[in-house]
Amino acid sequence: MQKHTGICIIVSILLSMSIVNGDQQTTLNLMPIPAEIVLKDGIFRLDESFTLKIDDPADSRLYQAATGMLRRLAGRTGYFMPQDYITAESNLENPQIIVKTSRIGELKLFEDESYSLTITDKQITLIAETDIGALRGFETFLQLLSVDQNGYYFPNCVINDKPRFPWRGLMIDASRHFMPVDVIKRNLDGMAAVKLNVFHWHLADDQGFRVECKTWPKLHELGSDGFYYTQDQIKEIIAYAADRGIRVIPEFDIPAHATSWLVAYPELGSAPGPYSMERGWGIKDPTMNPVNEFTYAFLDEFFSEMAALFPDDYMHIGGDENNGKHWDANPEIQQFMKDNDIPDKHMLQAYFNKRILKILAKYNKKMIGWDEIFQPGLPTDIVIHSWRGQKSLIESAQKGYMGILSNGYYIDLIQTAQYHYLNDPIPEDTPLSAEEQKQILGGEATSWGELVTYETVDSRIWPRTAAIAERFWSPRSVKNVDDMYRRLEVTSFHLEELGLLHLKNYDMMLRRLTKDHDISSLKTFADVVEPVKIYTRHHQGKKYMSYSPYTRVVDAARTESMTARHFSKLVDQYIADPKNPDAAELILQLSVWQENHRQLVEIIKVSPVLKEIESMSADLEALANLGLEAAKALAKNKKLKKNVVDASVVLFENAAKPRGQVELMIVPSIRKLVSAASN
Amino acid sequence: MQKHTGICIIVSILLSMSIVNGDQQTTLNLMPIPAEIVLKDGIFRLDESFTLKIDDPADSRLYQAATGMLRRLAGRTGYFMPQDYITAESNLENPQIIVKTSRIGELKLFEDESYSLTITDKQITLIAETDIGALRGFETFLQLLSVDQNGYYFPNCVINDKPRFPWRGLMIDASRHFMPVDVIKRNLDGMAAVKLNVFHWHLADDQGFRVECKTWPKLHELGSDGFYYTQDQIKEIIAYAADRGIRVIPEFDIPAHATSWLVAYPELGSAPGPYSMERGWGIKDPTMNPVNEFTYAFLDEFFSEMAALFPDDYMHIGGDENNGKHWDANPEIQQFMKDNDIPDKHMLQAYFNKRILKILAKYNKKMIGWDEIFQPGLPTDIVIHSWRGQKSLIESAQKGYMGILSNGYYIDLIQTAQYHYLNDPIPEDTPLSAEEQKQILGGEATSWGELVTYETVDSRIWPRTAAIAERFWSPRSVKNVDDMYRRLEVTSFHLEELGLLHLKNYDMMLRRLTKDHDISSLKTFADVVEPVKIYTRHHQGKKYMSYSPYTRVVDAARTESMTARHFSKLVDQYIADPKNPDAAELILQLSVWQENHRQLVEIIKVSPVLKEIESMSADLEALANLGLEAAKALAKNKKLKKNVVDASVVLFENAAKPRGQVELMIVPSIRKLVSAASN
Repeated sequence: MQKHTGICIIVSILLSMSIVNGDQQTTLNLMPIPAEIVLKDGIFRLDESFTLKIDDPADSRLYQAATGMLRRLAGRTGYFMPQDYITAESNLENPQIIVKTSRIGELKLFEDESYSLTITDKQITLIAETDIGALRGFETFLQLLSVDQNGYYFPNCVINDKPRFPWRGLMIDASRHFMPVDVIKRNLDGMAAVKLNVFHWHLADDQGFRVECKTWPKLHELGSDGFYYTQDQIKEIIAYAADRGIRVIPEFDIPAHATSWLVAYPELGSAPGPYSMERGWGIKDPTMNPVNEFTYAFLDEFFSEMAALFPDDYMHIGGDENNGKHWDANPEIQQFMKDNDIPDKHMLQAYFNKRILKILAKYNKKMIGWDEIFQPGLPTDIVIHSWRGQKSLIESAQKGYMGILSNGYYIDLIQTAQYHYLNDPIPEDTPLSAEEQKQILGGEATSWGELVTYETVDSRIWPRTAAIAERFWSPRSVKNVDDMYRRLEVTSFHLEELGLLHLKNYDMMLRRLTKDHDISSLKTFADVVEPVKIYTRHHQGKKYMSYSPYTRVVDAARTESMTARHFSKLVDQYIADPKNPDAAELILQLSVWQENHRQLVEIIKVSPVLKEIESMSADLEALANLGLEAAKALAKNKKLKKNVVDASVVLFENAAKPRGQVELMIVPSIRKLVSAASN
Repeated sequence: MQKHTGICIIVSILLSMSIVNGDQQTTLNLMPIPAEIVLKDGIFRLDESFTLKIDDPADSRLYQAATGMLRRLAGRTGYFMPQDYITAESNLENPQIIVKTSRIGELKLFEDESYSLTITDKQITLIAETDIGALRGFETFLQLLSVDQNGYYFPNCVINDKPRFPWRGLMIDASRHFMPVDVIKRNLDGMAAVKLNVFHWHLADDQGFRVECKTWPKLHELGSDGFYYTQDQIKEIIAYAADRGIRVIPEFDIPAHATSWLVAYPELGSAPGPYSMERGWGIKDPTMNPVNEFTYAFLDEFFSEMAALFPDDYMHIGGDENNGKHWDANPEIQQFMKDNDIPDKHMLQAYFNKRILKILAKYNKKMIGWDEIFQPGLPTDIVIHSWRGQKSLIESAQKGYMGILSNGYYIDLIQTAQYHYLNDPIPEDTPLSAEEQKQILGGEATSWGELVTYETVDSRIWPRTAAIAERFWSPRSVKNVDDMYRRLEVTSFHLEELGLLHLKNYDMMLRRLTKDHDISSLKTFADVVEPVKIYTRHHQGKKYMSYSPYTRVVDAARTESMTARHFSKLVDQYIADPKNPDAAELILQLSVWQENHRQLVEIIKVSPVLKEIESMSADLEALANLGLEAAKALAKNKKLKKNVVDASVVLFENAAKPRGQVELMIVPSIRKLVSAASN
């Protein structure tokens, strides 16, 4: 089953490896792919006597992770294994897996996360410099679990693994839509499973200030609609992340994106106020006043508190998208700029940032911020977070600044896993020298929160973020897209055992949309649509607000139609050879689509929320009819009739139009079929 | 679609009602059924202008609930309605629904939860004595949402509703398997949706002490394996419950069921110790020492802290299943009994309870405990929680004690919704006088935690607990089982919007069991099996421990096979008339089963965890073959051949045998078919 693709990509990295080991054939589903793996003959057969031992030094993190690993192994196999909680007291005579670490890892940039995993017939060893490395090794180990008719096994192998980049992040925006503690926790589990190590928590924006603040309590009291994390919850999440070897970096976006702060403390604002909570999306005017000493006194106390709450060395100050309108309109600010020879809003923001930098330094924090914070004269231990792209990243690296990339990893924009996967923080043609390249620390996938809720956020993050995680961890040469998609599906499945809802909420949302009728016809339809891309969704007749329903077909639809992707491959094969072995599958698929509308229309009658996609469902039927005609023509080596081809023009045009903010993803493939059958 | 059944049951309670109101036909899916409902002609048509207004007095609970209600309405309909957060400042000219309450309700026994809901073409009013009553009304209102080809509407009606019993509880055991905060929260949402009002939290037992305790910190430090609720989390959950009009009653089970306490403080025990954490199930020996003054000093401080943490008037002290072994073995205890004329362990426990009662009284708490706490001479404001049954409940009521019933509501025992539904706290033939009946406060469904994890607990609680909730809320005369099942399915579907996993984890678990292959054949099989009942699961070759995998077919299987239930109806109809309109459905169902094993066996090959049900899957095929033969014979009005009937005896015997701790639920129906075709 596609074994060879899986093997090829590994061969491309490795020197020595066997595909067939003993009687077993092994399909590796590792994601991210390790830096180095050598498969050996033979297997380690798993049975119910399986036990694990951890050598000193270790702390509760490693014991917990080992226990969790055993539970997941038991969960998958149904095996009743003998160990309960692994602790320092777990003394064993003959453990089948031995874990050895040299020291307890620290949650800081550049910490060692390497590990070596050796599997032989009788013994497994996992050796790592730090316990964090051992955690990464556990995930690889679980991904190696294989099956044959005799049961479960691990293929004999030697893996030496370490990350390509030290900063491998996921940002979750908890401001636009609040994300409860359990959402964050299960996503931290997902991150750990694919070896991500930085959770960037976007905690304050126009639409909500989400942290309990003791020095300035009106921030959460008036700026959150009651939806905020208590400091105890923050600590709980930081501890949860730490147990998974993940750093937590909070973002307090200033001076713009600050409406929620100004609702609470209008005296911080550049305009007189009062301010009211922002419920809409887009770049807003409210901005902190950079010439008022109160602003700095306020932020000094604020960051003093937050620096103690969040233990990481870095503090993200946002700094993006200041439209400057309230600065322009404030005579005091304008006068200050004149008096101080500040030529424009960018230099005024640089002034603001320098003041903030001093405050952060006072509390032993290093600054990270979006592109806009980059100005000459800043200390070189700041990190530039590039949302604008390679150009700014390269520029700052050349000037000696560290940077991470998020441009190309905006997972809220509903682009393909392939698109993100092939986006490299340091592309092959980088103009940076080897030394300069070291300034590029990695990147972050960013889950902006305008259009997601706790119900849908998992499906927007996963599984695509696993492909991004591989980009950050694995060697640059790992970039076989088809194999990535094969492994991504397996990874997506395994992520589900961690409680992530990305798979199961699909059916749940379809059930709600059908009012609990048979979802099969809606699923057939939803399987071939995707939400409209980039920011298009805001410009198709619906005005989205924070309190709008995010429960429609566009929200249920997956970010990437694997059905359409697969179908496009079937079409290519069919055009190349209508007698290819998968030709029947293409015909069957078209036949299913041809019949679907008749069933779906009955569901729409009892569920008006589906009316908005009715005409698109009819288009799917029409496209299927046309596709079948084209396929028949190709099979008979005949040309499609001219009137059919002519009529298809209008159909293609209509079918390509989004409705309900979703797009029908098979239009290009049918067009290809028709085009092939026309020549 | 079964409208008439739905209507009948309401007619049985009401005097005046219309089935057809205007052009609309209305199927009511209310659960629990209100005390009084009168349907009227006409409808209130829902559109995107829908707004709500709350009259004073109100507090954040009512505003939050109203906001949540609007969000759920928007979620179901996809309507972009204009209101964001409902607050005291939400002033509206022409709100379409007006909510009026007289006072803010208190979370205490006997609080008023009644409400009146009136829906007319243009206006909806919800009037309640307390805001808690209004919350109950919101749930009814959402359940009334209906649909026709023109969109969404509410049927005109007048509902006057109030609960039959003031104590309507769900107990969740968080000791045997720890249940994280999000599990508790989503189950509180489920409780609110079906108007339950007491969350009984089983927090300490042999296998875990789950509360952070500041006076005796080793309790959670050594007695929980690290899995406990912090006091902040406890407060968070109490507040969450309060926002839903739900009381929270903690249970600290003493003097038995106390291993985890004794691990931390062995000096509390009746045996010398040391004790180690209990990982197995059943009645265990470790018991607190009732003759040691340290025990009472300890518990005095303990309850002082817990009484402050948990605001409810009642404190549950468990008190059950003390096997007395450690008391018998302790000479000091035996001497004490002699010295004080205490004849047996029951009277010794009565002595212990009286001491505890004094402590609770000191901290203004009333005592509730299981049957065993009932002894003459206790004050009459204690509540007896009956797990033993009607007899003890009646006895205590007759003696002037208040009681609640859990016998018959043990939802961990995998019995049918029907069984629980027909179990009445005050059956029609009760020997209690009207006055004595007032002592019966209601009941609680109990979700004991041995065999459930955070993955499966929702599916063990829901939807069956909704049927129990109806038993506690609706008039006793509401007991049409078929209509209950019809409404239970709709209720189950609606519970899903609250984040409950009872439906979606079914597919998730089947995916894991198939190693992400097509789940359809496994689902066809799993749809007709149920876990073995009562405590049988512990006696079929597997020794279950707290850390065993609870991820096998028996865990995925639903507590009640609706497919088997439906099939048994098809069989009855078929036997009565082989030409009945649903006969084809029966044949089709049998044909599906006939084909299923061939597919499932291929999945089993790649997923050894399924091997344990392979022979049962083969039995399903054999039963289907036999059923089809019997059906054909009946259709032709012929007798089954004697050799077929003879052979069926062995098949039935084998097929009825549990494997993998599941039972095949269609055996009796096939037997019935064969029997009918043999005569």
